[in-house]
Amino acid sequence: MKIRMRVPATTANLGPGFDVFGGALALYNEFEAEYVTSGRTKFVLKGYGKRALAKGEKNLLWQAMAETFKVLGCDKYNLKNLNITINTGIPLSGGLGSSASAIVGGIALANALCGNKLNKAQMAQLGMRIEGHPDNVAPAVYGGLCVCAKEGGNAADNSKNTDVVKLPVPNLKVVMCAPSFELRTKRSRQILPKNVSLCDAVFNTSRVALLTAAFCTGDYSLLKKGMQDKIHQPYREKMIPAMDAVIKSALDAGAYGAFLSGSGPSIAALCNKKDAEGVQKAMVKTWKKESVSVKSYILDFDRHGVSQI
Amino acid sequence: MKIRMRVPATTANLGPGFDVFGGALALYNEFEAEYVTSGRTKFVLKGYGKRALAKGEKNLLWQAMAETFKVLGCDKYNLKNLNITINTGIPLSGGLGSSASAIVGGIALANALCGNKLNKAQMAQLGMRIEGHPDNVAPAVYGGLCVCAKEGGNAADNSKNTDVVKLPVPNLKVVMCAPSFELRTKRSRQILPKNVSLCDAVFNTSRVALLTAAFCTGDYSLLKKGMQDKIHQPYREKMIPAMDAVIKSALDAGAYGAFLSGSGPSIAALCNKKDAEGVQKAMVKTWKKESVSVKSYILDFDRHGVSQI
Repeated sequence: MKIRMRVPATTANLGPGFDVFGGALALYNEFEAEYVTSGRTKFVLKGYGKRALAKGEKNLLWQAMAETFKVLGCDKYNLKNLNITINTGIPLSGGLGSSASAIVGGIALANALCGNKLNKAQMAQLGMRIEGHPDNVAPAVYGGLCVCAKEGGNAADNSKNTDVVKLPVPNLKVVMCAPSFELRTKRSRQILPKNVSLCDAVFNTSRVALLTAAFCTGDYSLLKKGMQDKIHQPYREKMIPAMDAVIKSALDAGAYGAFLSGSGPSIAALCNKKDAEGVQKAMVKTWKKESVSVKSYILDFDRHGVSQI
Repeated sequence: MKIRMRVPATTANLGPGFDVFGGALALYNEFEAEYVTSGRTKFVLKGYGKRALAKGEKNLLWQAMAETFKVLGCDKYNLKNLNITINTGIPLSGGLGSSASAIVGGIALANALCGNKLNKAQMAQLGMRIEGHPDNVAPAVYGGLCVCAKEGGNAADNSKNTDVVKLPVPNLKVVMCAPSFELRTKRSRQILPKNVSLCDAVFNTSRVALLTAAFCTGDYSLLKKGMQDKIHQPYREKMIPAMDAVIKSALDAGAYGAFLSGSGPSIAALCNKKDAEGVQKAMVKTWKKESVSVKSYILDFDRHGVSQI
């Protein structure tokens, strides 16, 4: 038996929606698991992760598979009878949800091997529990644009469920610039403060209202203000010096809004199709001024989430 | 010349949208100014404010009129040649926007006396500058449901403009319970912390996303979570001991969501027309258990804001 899954890249936060908003992008990792009863087992890596990813038990895809086998009470599969192939189309550690993609891919592969006992909602809850934060996992599972609202008040309490609400997917292009330097999510999270001023919290709630209204009503002129943030981007800017300049260059080139993708360092902009190349050029040029080379993409939103292929 | 204005009551915050969300209600104050060249000038008070409101220069309506005359460079009118009549249909100090109503009424009256030089957007900006906070003033001017997004980060900086975005008005009833005890907005604001945890800020942004999506898409099932709050209601609960119980009783009786109206002590619930009386009864009963008598109303949203009548 051989099963292949395709999992989209994801962009989280979208400005003010820190730990809340996430969108799936038409840029994919592909994961394959083949059940073998004999022969030498293999761990084949392709794409961006070819040299960087761990083989064996330390591999995140495998860890998610093992956790899923455990949850499903399925002890048939192990690393001796499964060949794993990972083709990484999503840059690593760039703020594009590559970890969430591996976790969701692992859950989906293991679930399929065990007879698809989990539906998407159950896969999402399991993924959020493994990942710790919902805003990449949810769109990787469901596709489209997701709002994640965790029960209770403690974001770190993984025993709580998270409601996921899908918003209308905008008919816009996502211009994504992934710089060549890496930034570990953990480090980018440690830099955040434990407390924020009530003023900044109010600022962000007002912007999230505009962001949500923009997607629900299609009035994308609201995105410029609706993608402003005061609770994570200003702190992360210290690690990404060109951040404000790149965002400004995207807006000046006609983007509706721009933001730090996830915990960075990638920066994304939303714009009309006709403006996408201009926005891309402007953003790349601004990164270059800071002597940073970037991979850049003009992407659609993915509407399907994790899919068997 | 005699001019009459009608200004709606307003309910601010709607749970997580502290200082951001406001809705206009079909419950009104009426304000009248008559230009007189002779005779004894009068300040006539009717309704809830009959005994409580100041006459003369300390009256908030007059102060807003005087400020508007100043802004418009109109020195023709003063308290010697204007008779003022105030008919207060909105309970005072209840969290129903009675102050914002007086400010907006004063601006509108003075503007009309001077030839309507200000449009609604200009009246709103002036009103927010006088009032200090936007979330009651905006719906009092525009009617309907408003999202207020202030420029810059400092809520107290009155030099900054505030963008106001109108959301679709839900076809729901607002059950409003105004307790007999008063709570000064200033006191209810002092009790709030200067800082909140990043967790609580994220909690509120997630709920505001649900709140906005509920109004934009008409999926009112999102309101139960979408009206949860962690940045002002928990602090104000100390002054309004029945708050949680009244909110719970409204939800149990079929309301989609319930919240502290403005800075309280009034509590409001949103529900379908068929459930409104049951929700009202349940809320009043819960207040009574705490030995608090309440005025209660079943209201529609007002869709017009300040209007000359």
